[in-house]
Amino acid sequence: MTTIEQMEEVTAKLKERACEVCAETWEDRVKKQTPHCKFGEDGVCCKNCSMGPCRITPKANRGICGADAHAIAGRNYLRMIAAGTSAHSDHAREILHILHGASAEGNYQIRDEQKLVRLAKEYGVPTEGRDIYDIAHEVADTGLAEFGKSFGTQIFIKRATAERQRVWKEQGIEPRAIDREIATSMHMTNMGNTADAEALIRQGLRTSLSNGWGGSMLGTEISDIIFGTPTVRTTEGNLGVLEHDMVNIVVHGHDPAFSEMVVTAAEVKELVDYAKSKGARGINIVGLCCTANEVAMRHGVRMAGNFLQQENAILTGAVEMMCVDVQCIFPALAPLSECFHTKFVTSSPIARIPGSIYIEFKQETAFDQARELVKMAIDNFQNRDMSKVYIPPMKQNAVVGYPCEQIIGHLDGVANSHVDEFGTYKPVIDAIKAGVLRGAVAIVGCNNPRVRPDFSHFEIMKELLRNDILIVATGCAAQVATKAGLLNREAKYLCGTGLRRVCDLVNIPPILHMGACVDISRMMLLATGIARDWGVDTTQIPVVGCAPEWMSEKAVSIANYVVSTGIDVYLGIEPQVKGSSQMMELITQGTRKITGAGYIINTNPHELVTAIIDGIEAKRAALGI
Amino acid sequence: MTTIEQMEEVTAKLKERACEVCAETWEDRVKKQTPHCKFGEDGVCCKNCSMGPCRITPKANRGICGADAHAIAGRNYLRMIAAGTSAHSDHAREILHILHGASAEGNYQIRDEQKLVRLAKEYGVPTEGRDIYDIAHEVADTGLAEFGKSFGTQIFIKRATAERQRVWKEQGIEPRAIDREIATSMHMTNMGNTADAEALIRQGLRTSLSNGWGGSMLGTEISDIIFGTPTVRTTEGNLGVLEHDMVNIVVHGHDPAFSEMVVTAAEVKELVDYAKSKGARGINIVGLCCTANEVAMRHGVRMAGNFLQQENAILTGAVEMMCVDVQCIFPALAPLSECFHTKFVTSSPIARIPGSIYIEFKQETAFDQARELVKMAIDNFQNRDMSKVYIPPMKQNAVVGYPCEQIIGHLDGVANSHVDEFGTYKPVIDAIKAGVLRGAVAIVGCNNPRVRPDFSHFEIMKELLRNDILIVATGCAAQVATKAGLLNREAKYLCGTGLRRVCDLVNIPPILHMGACVDISRMMLLATGIARDWGVDTTQIPVVGCAPEWMSEKAVSIANYVVSTGIDVYLGIEPQVKGSSQMMELITQGTRKITGAGYIINTNPHELVTAIIDGIEAKRAALGI
Repeated sequence: MTTIEQMEEVTAKLKERACEVCAETWEDRVKKQTPHCKFGEDGVCCKNCSMGPCRITPKANRGICGADAHAIAGRNYLRMIAAGTSAHSDHAREILHILHGASAEGNYQIRDEQKLVRLAKEYGVPTEGRDIYDIAHEVADTGLAEFGKSFGTQIFIKRATAERQRVWKEQGIEPRAIDREIATSMHMTNMGNTADAEALIRQGLRTSLSNGWGGSMLGTEISDIIFGTPTVRTTEGNLGVLEHDMVNIVVHGHDPAFSEMVVTAAEVKELVDYAKSKGARGINIVGLCCTANEVAMRHGVRMAGNFLQQENAILTGAVEMMCVDVQCIFPALAPLSECFHTKFVTSSPIARIPGSIYIEFKQETAFDQARELVKMAIDNFQNRDMSKVYIPPMKQNAVVGYPCEQIIGHLDGVANSHVDEFGTYKPVIDAIKAGVLRGAVAIVGCNNPRVRPDFSHFEIMKELLRNDILIVATGCAAQVATKAGLLNREAKYLCGTGLRRVCDLVNIPPILHMGACVDISRMMLLATGIARDWGVDTTQIPVVGCAPEWMSEKAVSIANYVVSTGIDVYLGIEPQVKGSSQMMELITQGTRKITGAGYIINTNPHELVTAIIDGIEAKRAALGI
Repeated sequence: MTTIEQMEEVTAKLKERACEVCAETWEDRVKKQTPHCKFGEDGVCCKNCSMGPCRITPKANRGICGADAHAIAGRNYLRMIAAGTSAHSDHAREILHILHGASAEGNYQIRDEQKLVRLAKEYGVPTEGRDIYDIAHEVADTGLAEFGKSFGTQIFIKRATAERQRVWKEQGIEPRAIDREIATSMHMTNMGNTADAEALIRQGLRTSLSNGWGGSMLGTEISDIIFGTPTVRTTEGNLGVLEHDMVNIVVHGHDPAFSEMVVTAAEVKELVDYAKSKGARGINIVGLCCTANEVAMRHGVRMAGNFLQQENAILTGAVEMMCVDVQCIFPALAPLSECFHTKFVTSSPIARIPGSIYIEFKQETAFDQARELVKMAIDNFQNRDMSKVYIPPMKQNAVVGYPCEQIIGHLDGVANSHVDEFGTYKPVIDAIKAGVLRGAVAIVGCNNPRVRPDFSHFEIMKELLRNDILIVATGCAAQVATKAGLLNREAKYLCGTGLRRVCDLVNIPPILHMGACVDISRMMLLATGIARDWGVDTTQIPVVGCAPEWMSEKAVSIANYVVSTGIDVYLGIEPQVKGSSQMMELITQGTRKITGAGYIINTNPHELVTAIIDGIEAKRAALGI
């Protein structure tokens, strides 16, 4: 196991190297940006018209228009949800366009025909006797329509439990077209519109549902169809996956369409030979952030690190090229790359960054573009200044790739073929009922310099494992587990006896890596599957979500769709609505009356994990187990 | 004519009455909110993730992620455009849903069949031998698809000049589905995405085009189809339109679907009789903000005032009910109404305001709901406290209702039937070419306590008229003209000799009231029509836009689609991007390379109007006239 202290030592060493080349990193910028503006932190600063900005103080309890703290904090919060929804869902849209243009001879093919056919049937798209690409294109059309159809609600909400569907309908939060929910949210928060905090929260729940049970779920489904549904595989994680004697290319961002092509191009013999001709042992593709999760789950590509490590990767001086797609990309990478030989390549019109090499990635030319990029990276190998190189000798083995299909597959392995049905979550339900497992926690989200990076993740994970609570993880949280060594099967030794037995029996690590942040939709289906096979609603099962160090607006959208799904969310970073007592009440209590779930917020990870365990035990008690 | 000083005297008197009842008004809140946060004013405060908020200072030139002043100001600016676009366009969507449910027996019918058929033909919807409502519903479907279609661009962009269409295509700013542009903007501005100011500006232009040549234009077209294309009519404006001995109902907001029903209900004899039975002389419906413009243009309903007068209306103590729909509604109206007998009624899920009576307006029950409301207002008449009543004896006559159709109609009246074609803008072009008219200015936008309210509008209008420059006006700007008496035909005496001659000949006031802020799309078609009949592009004609006192995010979207249309925009309020030299350059100069137009910003109205006149003369010179 690698401890947080050991990781911090490495970061400190890389920070020294940054100082040597006069490069600024996030640590410097955090210092300069601290203390943060209290109005912003509390959510009571309004910039939604040019009469202001206004801010709520004890003396000024309303903005110029009369909006109070509740209206302002509520509007800001809803805009975060709208932005987060747009990000995740727009990612899905891009993938749908790829599916729409996929062909047997093209750059992108169908890798999971079975999943495509299943989705086609769900959509009512005819499949009998049709060419798989004809089916694919019609499925893409239906998927794309989920963003903009004029009438009706998201198709995938029918996947939820009957009780959830009833709640959403009764509460008026069934999500309509994804883009429409975003537009509605922006309209409601525009000057002179909604000032009622509860109405803003309700629209937040609806908008987030269009993400979790719409855009994000589409992103996952379609990525699986095009790039293959992930399977269990071993890989490695942390900066030690960079290689001294190879051409290192880091793929970073979220949308796998680009990185998949880079990974494929790097396997072309001609390019490997070219790398060798330039004195390298080969080409080493590694991932960062959620793009890392995507390619690790599908190709075993090794993971260099998570969000706050993006600068560290460049600071090793060993990265020939960093290719990014969308989201969570520090604009700081551009000036930082200039301190080294690293080529910083942007590829999407959604994420244009000054100082980068911009190569707009297009479906029709994707593979050729990827080849060109890999070649550019190889040509850059000779520019590496060995005196500036420091690759921390730190990495851990990890087992990744547990989408629902793989979890079901593993559970089938322990089902009793005489009495059990296959293809259900019954074995895990039985384990929970028996108390061998106390429950499960989805640990997700970013890391954030507001707290000691990765520390909260790590502390919470360890404590949950000790308490026989299985963890499923995505995104940067999953990468903390990777770096720490908690995705090893050997991590079972950190677990309580119950969980250890389950790990042994089912042959899994105690933390299951389910993918990127867009894949939290997989977790919704997992919870739904468990609830269904249990015969209860998602809000009843001893399963909760936890984002100990969230940072992105995407996380606010996610937290809201998880709450909408009836699952409590434990947050280690405070949502920026503290200046409104109504908003604080609504996010922690008010949503419980609407969806049956809410937030529990605590910035102390040890107190937070205690709350989680109490929450799980309370759910168990309510079920009489 | 009523001067600004006279208007201010009235406001001061009403302010005294506010003090008497211990009511707070915007003047108090402005004092408490001043000085504003400089970071917000300069656009260099970023709240787009929970690592921050971050702000740019001389010592901290980047946020934690590395976003600099240009990225932050650019992102904030694009989000304003996205929000403004969502507001205007969502308004159109509501109207399209009304069209979709319109029926011969229903609450809403088709009032302009000719316009519907014209639009159907433009959309390729069959019309021959079909029931008008069948056509309407299919047109509504096509219109609604403009918000969410997966492929293609806005249909109405084909209405622009060929040159404009070429520019938009070449510059990559042809607008796709409206909601998609909003979602894309939110995605691009999400943490870790676009940090390049020019890319943000370009998306701003594209998004705004989806408003001006998409949503807003649809809002106008469909409103005309359902409620009738406005025609020239006389009305009155300013608070003096409230009546001492009548039941006063103020309709306020933007979406005419609600207010049209209230207006219709107030004409029902049974209700008028009921009002009389309660001691009132009758029912007096008056408008506020853009709803006022909508109902004035179509019914001659009198206009109580513009944005910053909304509290004043209630302060008269003579308002039995204020019914609001969406946008620009002070949440402050709720506590203010409680100081009087006024019933404050909200009607839209988009604009929920605490302390209001919420009656969700539905198409199927619209008329019955409106009747109930009018009855409620009548019942409230007896609660009016006459000791609290002060209706300022101040109002002006006004001629309103100049959509393009009416302008063309008037021009036909002066065309020489021996040599001229009818139905063209040739007469006005000839007048401009001859120098009788120097050009035209569209004066639009809100008022804003950042400057002396209404003053800039008024000063600029007077100076332009003196210089033989015709004015077209919408929104709160049009209401300044109304209140001042500039919409009288008598206002010609303020004009230079050329403009006066035109007013006499064509029988128009020198300022043409074209409608609500959503109707700035009419101005785009007017400019396009003039350019077409002239044989040049919109960017060449001596026509510019001016928003002297804008306040709303909608105005930012509008300004951008006007600039996209090739028309310079003169602003009297600074866009909040001053903290970024790149953004300042882009909005004033950079867009000129993209669209041929940009902003000219000056907070001094006298300097601004000089710049406008210079700009018009420069356009003339370039045309060799």
